[in-house]
Amino acid sequence: MAFPLLFLLFCTFCSSPSAIYSTFIPYNTSASVVSGKINVHFVPHSHDDVGWLKTVDQYYFGGNNSIRGACVQNVLDSVMSSLFEDKNRKFIYVEMAFFQRWWRQQSSGMKERVKGLVNSGQLEFINGGMCMHDEATPHYIDLIDQTTLGHKFIKDEFGQIPRVGWQIDPFGHSAVQAYLLGAEFGFDSLFFARIDYQDRAKRLQDKTLEVVWRGSQSLGSTSQIFTGIFPRHYDPPDGFTFEINDVSPPIQDDVLLFDYNVQERVSDFVAAALAQANVTRTNHIMWLMGTDFRYQYANSWYRQMDKFIHYVNQDGRVNVLYSTPSMYTDAKHAANEEWPLKTGDFFPYADHQNAYWTGYFTSRPAFKGFVRTMSGYYLAARQLEFFRGRSGVASKLGVLADALAIAQHHDAVSGTQRQHVAADYALRISIGYKECPLLNISYCPPTESISSDEQSLVVVAYNPLGWKREEVIRIPVSSENVEVRDSNGIQIESQLVPLLNATSRVRTIYAKAYTGHFPSEMPKYWLAFSASLPPLGFNTYFVSVANQTGSSSILSLVHTAENTKARTVEVGPGNLKLRFSVDSGELTHFINGRSLVATSVEQSYGYYTGNDGTNKDPQASGAYVFRPNGTFTVKNLGQVPSTFLRGPLLDEVHQQLNPWISQIGPIPLDDGTGKEITTQIKTTMKTNKTFYTDSNGRDFIKRVRDQRTDWDLEVNQPVAGNYYPVNLGIYVEDDTTELSVLVDRSVGGSSLVDGQIELMLHRRMLHDDMRGVGEVLNEIVCVLDECEGLTKLLNGFVYILLQIVGKMFLRVDQLGEGAKWRRTVGQEIYSPVLVAFTKQQDASKWMESHVNSFSGVDPSYSLPNNVAVITLQELKVGEVLLRLAHLYEIGEDKDYSGMARVELKMLFPNKKIGKVTELSLSANQKRSELEKRRLVWKVAAKEEESKVVRGGAVDPDNLVVELAPMEIRTFFLNFDSPQIYVS
Amino acid sequence: MAFPLLFLLFCTFCSSPSAIYSTFIPYNTSASVVSGKINVHFVPHSHDDVGWLKTVDQYYFGGNNSIRGACVQNVLDSVMSSLFEDKNRKFIYVEMAFFQRWWRQQSSGMKERVKGLVNSGQLEFINGGMCMHDEATPHYIDLIDQTTLGHKFIKDEFGQIPRVGWQIDPFGHSAVQAYLLGAEFGFDSLFFARIDYQDRAKRLQDKTLEVVWRGSQSLGSTSQIFTGIFPRHYDPPDGFTFEINDVSPPIQDDVLLFDYNVQERVSDFVAAALAQANVTRTNHIMWLMGTDFRYQYANSWYRQMDKFIHYVNQDGRVNVLYSTPSMYTDAKHAANEEWPLKTGDFFPYADHQNAYWTGYFTSRPAFKGFVRTMSGYYLAARQLEFFRGRSGVASKLGVLADALAIAQHHDAVSGTQRQHVAADYALRISIGYKECPLLNISYCPPTESISSDEQSLVVVAYNPLGWKREEVIRIPVSSENVEVRDSNGIQIESQLVPLLNATSRVRTIYAKAYTGHFPSEMPKYWLAFSASLPPLGFNTYFVSVANQTGSSSILSLVHTAENTKARTVEVGPGNLKLRFSVDSGELTHFINGRSLVATSVEQSYGYYTGNDGTNKDPQASGAYVFRPNGTFTVKNLGQVPSTFLRGPLLDEVHQQLNPWISQIGPIPLDDGTGKEITTQIKTTMKTNKTFYTDSNGRDFIKRVRDQRTDWDLEVNQPVAGNYYPVNLGIYVEDDTTELSVLVDRSVGGSSLVDGQIELMLHRRMLHDDMRGVGEVLNEIVCVLDECEGLTKLLNGFVYILLQIVGKMFLRVDQLGEGAKWRRTVGQEIYSPVLVAFTKQQDASKWMESHVNSFSGVDPSYSLPNNVAVITLQELKVGEVLLRLAHLYEIGEDKDYSGMARVELKMLFPNKKIGKVTELSLSANQKRSELEKRRLVWKVAAKEEESKVVRGGAVDPDNLVVELAPMEIRTFFLNFDSPQIYVS
Repeated sequence: MAFPLLFLLFCTFCSSPSAIYSTFIPYNTSASVVSGKINVHFVPHSHDDVGWLKTVDQYYFGGNNSIRGACVQNVLDSVMSSLFEDKNRKFIYVEMAFFQRWWRQQSSGMKERVKGLVNSGQLEFINGGMCMHDEATPHYIDLIDQTTLGHKFIKDEFGQIPRVGWQIDPFGHSAVQAYLLGAEFGFDSLFFARIDYQDRAKRLQDKTLEVVWRGSQSLGSTSQIFTGIFPRHYDPPDGFTFEINDVSPPIQDDVLLFDYNVQERVSDFVAAALAQANVTRTNHIMWLMGTDFRYQYANSWYRQMDKFIHYVNQDGRVNVLYSTPSMYTDAKHAANEEWPLKTGDFFPYADHQNAYWTGYFTSRPAFKGFVRTMSGYYLAARQLEFFRGRSGVASKLGVLADALAIAQHHDAVSGTQRQHVAADYALRISIGYKECPLLNISYCPPTESISSDEQSLVVVAYNPLGWKREEVIRIPVSSENVEVRDSNGIQIESQLVPLLNATSRVRTIYAKAYTGHFPSEMPKYWLAFSASLPPLGFNTYFVSVANQTGSSSILSLVHTAENTKARTVEVGPGNLKLRFSVDSGELTHFINGRSLVATSVEQSYGYYTGNDGTNKDPQASGAYVFRPNGTFTVKNLGQVPSTFLRGPLLDEVHQQLNPWISQIGPIPLDDGTGKEITTQIKTTMKTNKTFYTDSNGRDFIKRVRDQRTDWDLEVNQPVAGNYYPVNLGIYVEDDTTELSVLVDRSVGGSSLVDGQIELMLHRRMLHDDMRGVGEVLNEIVCVLDECEGLTKLLNGFVYILLQIVGKMFLRVDQLGEGAKWRRTVGQEIYSPVLVAFTKQQDASKWMESHVNSFSGVDPSYSLPNNVAVITLQELKVGEVLLRLAHLYEIGEDKDYSGMARVELKMLFPNKKIGKVTELSLSANQKRSELEKRRLVWKVAAKEEESKVVRGGAVDPDNLVVELAPMEIRTFFLNFDSPQIYVS
Repeated sequence: MAFPLLFLLFCTFCSSPSAIYSTFIPYNTSASVVSGKINVHFVPHSHDDVGWLKTVDQYYFGGNNSIRGACVQNVLDSVMSSLFEDKNRKFIYVEMAFFQRWWRQQSSGMKERVKGLVNSGQLEFINGGMCMHDEATPHYIDLIDQTTLGHKFIKDEFGQIPRVGWQIDPFGHSAVQAYLLGAEFGFDSLFFARIDYQDRAKRLQDKTLEVVWRGSQSLGSTSQIFTGIFPRHYDPPDGFTFEINDVSPPIQDDVLLFDYNVQERVSDFVAAALAQANVTRTNHIMWLMGTDFRYQYANSWYRQMDKFIHYVNQDGRVNVLYSTPSMYTDAKHAANEEWPLKTGDFFPYADHQNAYWTGYFTSRPAFKGFVRTMSGYYLAARQLEFFRGRSGVASKLGVLADALAIAQHHDAVSGTQRQHVAADYALRISIGYKECPLLNISYCPPTESISSDEQSLVVVAYNPLGWKREEVIRIPVSSENVEVRDSNGIQIESQLVPLLNATSRVRTIYAKAYTGHFPSEMPKYWLAFSASLPPLGFNTYFVSVANQTGSSSILSLVHTAENTKARTVEVGPGNLKLRFSVDSGELTHFINGRSLVATSVEQSYGYYTGNDGTNKDPQASGAYVFRPNGTFTVKNLGQVPSTFLRGPLLDEVHQQLNPWISQIGPIPLDDGTGKEITTQIKTTMKTNKTFYTDSNGRDFIKRVRDQRTDWDLEVNQPVAGNYYPVNLGIYVEDDTTELSVLVDRSVGGSSLVDGQIELMLHRRMLHDDMRGVGEVLNEIVCVLDECEGLTKLLNGFVYILLQIVGKMFLRVDQLGEGAKWRRTVGQEIYSPVLVAFTKQQDASKWMESHVNSFSGVDPSYSLPNNVAVITLQELKVGEVLLRLAHLYEIGEDKDYSGMARVELKMLFPNKKIGKVTELSLSANQKRSELEKRRLVWKVAAKEEESKVVRGGAVDPDNLVVELAPMEIRTFFLNFDSPQIYVS
């Protein structure tokens, strides 16, 4: 007899899953490389901009989230938790500015645990500078410094040496990045995402996304680096992003829940892996598991990666493992493949036919100038700190060092950040800069009031270069009755140059904006005098009210078209003259008396109206992108009134070209168009489409208009697509002549017509270019409640030796002579004479109580003309970091492109040099160990390289450093008994 | 002799912060209550809807994030990490459906660590049901069951007993929630956010947001609960939300970073605390640190809370501490305050003058019906599982139990979820329901094909009630030549009722939609016969082809207006008759022969056009909100053709009121208006604005049109603002008569005119009502590629005893007689006879081999008419959970509102009852311990309560359970020697 109901009524439950009380799955995440299979290297990473839409600190602590939700503290906190949970998980970290902030906040216990992660390789630092620097607009010295700072932190705290360059986001890639900031750091590889879209298409086709890159013609294979370009961008394949709230389907592998999808997701994975393997050499592909500011909750990524490793490897079609770019590099190296050779660089970058990222070469020129100025200042300050001796006190340069370091970020000096972030970078650099911050814009209270009382002004001028230097120094003064004496009390020649209206106006506005008050007294003149300065040394000068009428400064002669009969006027010092037409005010000739060249040279200004993105392609010109609206438009400037100021020390030409161009700004927007202001230098030279621009202020790279070396260029933007970054200078040459222009900050430049050089000076836009910044590049300065576009004084050119802001330096040389000028003047531009002031009742008392003249080097010595001290820094008492840079490339100059020699004993005349250790460029390892460790790559080169010579080992007895062309050598010096120079 | 440069050149760095190498701050988070200060109780919580915009599983594992980023797994993973990090941190968790999913996936090691958190009080379970259930639309038995399930999990895994009710999101709050699902669980407090905006305004003013609530008139102070209503919502004060990417300013307390803001944030905190203290009694205020699906990365919250506790307490103006609602409750209790008394409930809920959340009382009526049907089924299934005995095998009811539990969620049975989520709930309930799932829509293959072969259909009918029961059973058949025999083989009377067109059409469409094919054969009739069933027992019937012509079922007589001469027709069983006008088809009178009442009753249909939100207040009618467009609109239906079917067992009236109203659907939207379909029952009774609606199917609560008990109502929505939830029924009364309507699922109802009852039957909208669901409530069924609005058959009324879907039950009684009908029929509606089928070649063989008739109780016994077995469940062999419910309130019925008695020995005639332990309602603690533990609150009541009587202790010898009115008692029974009933 059976009870009938159970079957009948309960049949509805028969197919229910039976009770399972645990669905715990121990994922097997221990995979390593499997030969013979496609190996997918999971590289968990977070790309953390050191400032962009928000300031670096706001990004760090999650402030200002209404602009963008991002908090690096979350990233680092949560990543560490996830790494602690499974020893197979890995993570890379890149930006030391953020990591330092986090590190300082940790308990000692946490620090110990994190050190364990680093030691085991779970957490790896790559790149390792304070930021992921820009490659177009910074100076190479800044890049070395910012990386050294980060590498030092990593070495000091973790004993680690980064092996990989990781420039995944910068908008184009420089030759200097490859060899100097890559190979010379000891990096075994360099990775990035952004290259020209046409270049990428070809490389995908040819499987040439991974190459060996020789960035330097001079150093060749001794400074090459394995370089990987990502197939798309630096994020995961579509459908594999796992930030909180991301929409990629997570693996659902709990059999008790709905939407179980393991097989489906594994198949998605295999398909994506095979697609990538199809454009990649060897069996190894990298998946970038992360992107901007991801891993705010790291577990959401690791949970999925754990599952993929578990299930995909169970499936077996491909192999996937937790990895790092180092492990990936080693796997590539182990494959023993011959790699294609890459030379030159990856500029300019376009991600679309109308989107050439060549606008940012110039964006925010004032900020770019400020960074460059402070860079030179920082170099000199370290020298001075060393000469003075710190007596065991901590260096006071840390804040400036940090500020300059993050200013090299690819959204900092690049000018592609939001306005408030630009202000934040500037503020950081300015902190502490209280005494004379406005000298830069012709405002300096202590000097102006010198005429109103009986005091003397003490002027100390320091020369950070290793050569003796004569330079004209200019100080604004209010009186014409002043005189200048040297440190022996001897009066020297001086000249008064009247301040003209445009300069005064700018000065007034900016003084108010920065100091909060208008200057009480208007200076009327620049007081100019010639200072004579020893290498790495200073002299003191005294400015006071002239005792007798005859002793005072000489007033400049003023010529205008009205008061001058001659139809041309020549101005300029010594052999160099510029000839102007008095009637038109136009520059007509450059006369280089020494080389007997009188070249026809015309200079003009123009502007492009930025494309507003309203035509069928909505790409506008913006902070990143330069997209001129159709054809090139030059404003016809017509005749201009000119003023010529002449005197014993210097001549000046002032031109009011039109109401706003005289100072390039404020750029008017009233006509509804953004404007990108340019200047053109025109000659009749036959330059055959060819011009040369520097790479981060160092090597010059040949550019050919409308051509690329790596592929047949389809020309869509004949202007923007021929722009290149200019940090040091740009030049053209023909059979007889070189025309060079040097700059005091980075700008974009080109040669769009044979014989011509064009530079973009300033940009003021009306549209965002849709690359993320989400704000229009429209810099303004506000005084009271009125704002106007940021003014950039541009009265440049070599004939005005000491203009305060915005300088360009023009030179015409006989063919073969230009390099000497470019390299020497270039170094002087980077390291101007530093001038400091104090007031004294009695000049003689000062003279008696102070060192009035000083040189750091032996009085009989100065550095060779082809060498610069780019770092001289006391690390601690008796320990010094010294970097010496050869300034010339191979073949660049008949005199200076050979091996240079520096005598350390003469460089440190008062020190007993105990031990000299050569280091890697970022000073985090011995050079000898670097060379031992470095991976050697096989290159599929078409022709054999001629032998590269580098400087030899330093003999411990004679202590002479050899430097081959373009070589930079870094030394750690021990002084046996530290000597305090002045007690 | 001094070296001059340092001062001059380095003055710029003098004001730099000196080097600080650690900014680690050990936050002091150990605060506890400080007397004499405002104490801010931080209550970290995440409100995790068990399905809403996404399905419960999608919410759990983070699937379908394109709809909404939410992943409860993140919440639980990250919260545990944060709790492990600091023992002072606390968290509450509420929804066991999610917690179970997470718990099952954890390793045993993690489980141990989490148990540590629970034991130490860092992690506290509150509420503790599987979900935070709705309070308007579920049946109280479902609510007890879903909470019992969650509480059992908590007890089994953690040994914990939740102390706090936490209904923070449901849209109004029921009396049953307060006393039954609060006090009777042993909760010491209940908290929620949503009450009428007018009510809140008054309570803020009066400081009466915290009260003691007596939800039951019958149980009074024996079932009261301290209740806290939040001042605003269940999220933190503005500016204190700290989910990743939230925009509240985090505390920045690193002196090396910019934007240091400790003082500012502390002051913000103090201001917000004082503002809240100003509307709160005692020194304790609660801050709800979290909201929907927050804590996906818990650390982002705890990091900030740590800092606030540290710095605010340093500041000292107020005190802030990590807390839980339990700690808060204890602090409130310790204050020894007298609290205001609250009776009744918090319906309806309006958050705005035009936003009465009374639409969801009816939204998704088909799903509401499905849930109710399966609820009754589940109750019966547990009984049967017990009677059959599981022989130690795990219960197979777990899946249905879980599915029904989450269906009680406040976005599930409420009908306020997205369409795909509603489908998910239904699918879960349907899993395993494979044999006859379509009986519900008149499709059941085994029964229909009975006429086509020689088999017998075996029909087993089970009665889950404790009373004997006679009921008409209907089965669709295709032939008219059938007969029915009882379990003794005796032929019984049966009737064939023709299937009319509307029913057939629905059947065809739905069969295709759910089974994928159209039914092969169309049934032509319902075969009806009367089954006689013992208490908690079954009988077996056999349907077969009639042997002789005379023996077959009797065909119903069909009357239409055309073929009938009489101008009225009366239909109905026994004493009850409905009188219709044949000409108009309208119901005119209800005749209750027993009480000699012939009441004029008219029934009609109408609809409201939902407000589309295009006028000045953009509030539309939607899933939650009922906002009729201006005044009430009744579609004048005109004359209708009617069909009357009559026979020996039942009569039916079919009315084709208009092309779509006959079945209430598909509701047409062609005219561009959403429609909310209603029916009105009109009488001439003088009901003085007063009507009664049940609370979750249990207590009836008096409602007065346009009035509230707690404040002077400003009437803005005279229709929507008078709607109340109806689960069991609604009634009105005057001096002589009661008019009652019972329902088979929850609906919204009111009495908008004296003597009238209105119920909302269905809703189909064209607009979202902007309460988050973000989808228009517009249910459709798709067959092939054609979709139409979900049809809800509504052929209701008592005169059609067994319609398949959508029933209402109408009754007119003499005053004082209605309760008996409502309570008895209400129980029968909840627990219909369960019918199961199988086919047999030979009926007699089945009879010989099976138990054909069975009752679980002693043959001489049935339960008293005022008691129901609401739970009879075998926990394991020999252990049973028994819940007995008194069905009447105090004073409700002259016969049945007294103490009831149940003889356990008669209820379990074949068991030897060893031990009877009374438990709390959710069966997680002994009732005696609950009473000991329970906090006693002082109440500021205006009048003294009359003494409340409850059932006494169960004498272990006679084992009689006493039940006072509305009392539900829960027992754990041990049977000394388990007896398998049938071997």
